[in-house]
Amino acid sequence: MSYLPIFVALLNDSKMNKKPLILVTNDDGITAPGIRTLIKVMKSIGNVVVIAPDSPQSGMGHAITVNSTLHCDKVSEADAEIEEYSCSGTPADCVKLAIHEILDTRPDLCVSGINHGSNSSINVIYSGTMSAAIEAGIEGIPAIGFSLLDYSWDADFSQIEGYIHTIVTNVLDNKMQPGMVLNVNFPKLIKDEIKGIKVCRQAKGNWVEEFDKRISPMGREYYWLSGQFVSFDKGEDTDDWALKNGYISLVPCQFDLTAHHFIQELNTWDLND
Amino acid sequence: MSYLPIFVALLNDSKMNKKPLILVTNDDGITAPGIRTLIKVMKSIGNVVVIAPDSPQSGMGHAITVNSTLHCDKVSEADAEIEEYSCSGTPADCVKLAIHEILDTRPDLCVSGINHGSNSSINVIYSGTMSAAIEAGIEGIPAIGFSLLDYSWDADFSQIEGYIHTIVTNVLDNKMQPGMVLNVNFPKLIKDEIKGIKVCRQAKGNWVEEFDKRISPMGREYYWLSGQFVSFDKGEDTDDWALKNGYISLVPCQFDLTAHHFIQELNTWDLND
Repeated sequence: MSYLPIFVALLNDSKMNKKPLILVTNDDGITAPGIRTLIKVMKSIGNVVVIAPDSPQSGMGHAITVNSTLHCDKVSEADAEIEEYSCSGTPADCVKLAIHEILDTRPDLCVSGINHGSNSSINVIYSGTMSAAIEAGIEGIPAIGFSLLDYSWDADFSQIEGYIHTIVTNVLDNKMQPGMVLNVNFPKLIKDEIKGIKVCRQAKGNWVEEFDKRISPMGREYYWLSGQFVSFDKGEDTDDWALKNGYISLVPCQFDLTAHHFIQELNTWDLND
Repeated sequence: MSYLPIFVALLNDSKMNKKPLILVTNDDGITAPGIRTLIKVMKSIGNVVVIAPDSPQSGMGHAITVNSTLHCDKVSEADAEIEEYSCSGTPADCVKLAIHEILDTRPDLCVSGINHGSNSSINVIYSGTMSAAIEAGIEGIPAIGFSLLDYSWDADFSQIEGYIHTIVTNVLDNKMQPGMVLNVNFPKLIKDEIKGIKVCRQAKGNWVEEFDKRISPMGREYYWLSGQFVSFDKGEDTDDWALKNGYISLVPCQFDLTAHHFIQELNTWDLND
């Protein structure tokens, strides 16, 4: 008689019972409705720790706090099942603090969002939501940024809960390779109108800025940044196309900015004459 | 007799006389010594307009100002040959303001820096210097970020002036393709020790953070972000290798974050069951 089958059964059981540790953050701040939906879905999948900015950090890109101090306080009135921390820094600061200071063990996954507004196409560059996910990716932790194309604070996040669950369990089950970060955007549609999840590339596009110039009560000129996003990418494999055509876009991202295809041409330049 | 040779000669003369319009910015602020060196070299090549942050913006990544107002004031005591503007925003804000509000014509080139400190390897992600250059790249303007591996305010920038001149004239003469942005880092060496300019890729590496935890006079805990950069890339074609071996590193960058090689694998996942 061998004890091996019993041992294997126990091992499988222990593996199955070990819930993943999920770090949740965002850029709209710890009180935003979007992060509350994300926390709710993550609680059904793993053990959750929340470390998020204490105030909105939209448009913060990959900013980190190097010239001033950071506060990070435990939120005492939070959900008893999870730990929550409110941080004075940027989304990328939150992830750095979580991994290197607050958490005892490395998270199995980092999720960021749900952002109130789009992070598709070039918006990924300006996005605090995605910078948090990318910071986790740099640390070798699988990460996903979620965004809904609805800037309203009262946006209905409930109908996308199922899709978030599907994407997160896929990332955990498929053991996504280190350094990969998913950028997921949901169209502003009711559930029945959503056609499904589409794997895409980042569309080429940019913002055409229109600065709104005003005069302060003290007579000084100042500006508000405004403008509109313009896509100039005709491809049907882009996130912009997917969202305009009723799909949830899923773009795998990485953080090597090298334009590898341009290296050969640069080597023909007269740089060392 | 044909007038064509005279016409061509006049055209060439007019082309040669048309100096390029160069936008200069940085992330250390308009008063930093690094930007003064950059302005000096650019004045020998083209017509210069400076629009730079009014205070240091290190580590600002690709942050933009969406939730507050921007000021941008002409600096009256500046060099009579050039226009200078001091802006309350981030480096990316400066470039957006320059192109869409301050300048009458689009610049032929945007240069950012010279940064006081390294922007090689993963630092490109956190860099305000490079975010300004990348913002210009997104706008389709050739752009270069320059950094010296010397954090000192008194760093000697004079010995790298010739290299900057060489790189900038190459970019202008070779008509670098739109969307390309060069990340140039100079080693902290005297001129005779520098081996030349090396075209590289971004090294794989990250910062290992050590948060310096302190207690304020009021008894509240706070943190300073610190740590050290660790490269785990053994390649001899990286910026990190080049800088450690006495070369100036030149990495061509782009802003499509898509991990194209991962799309095929993602399409095998069970995302739409």
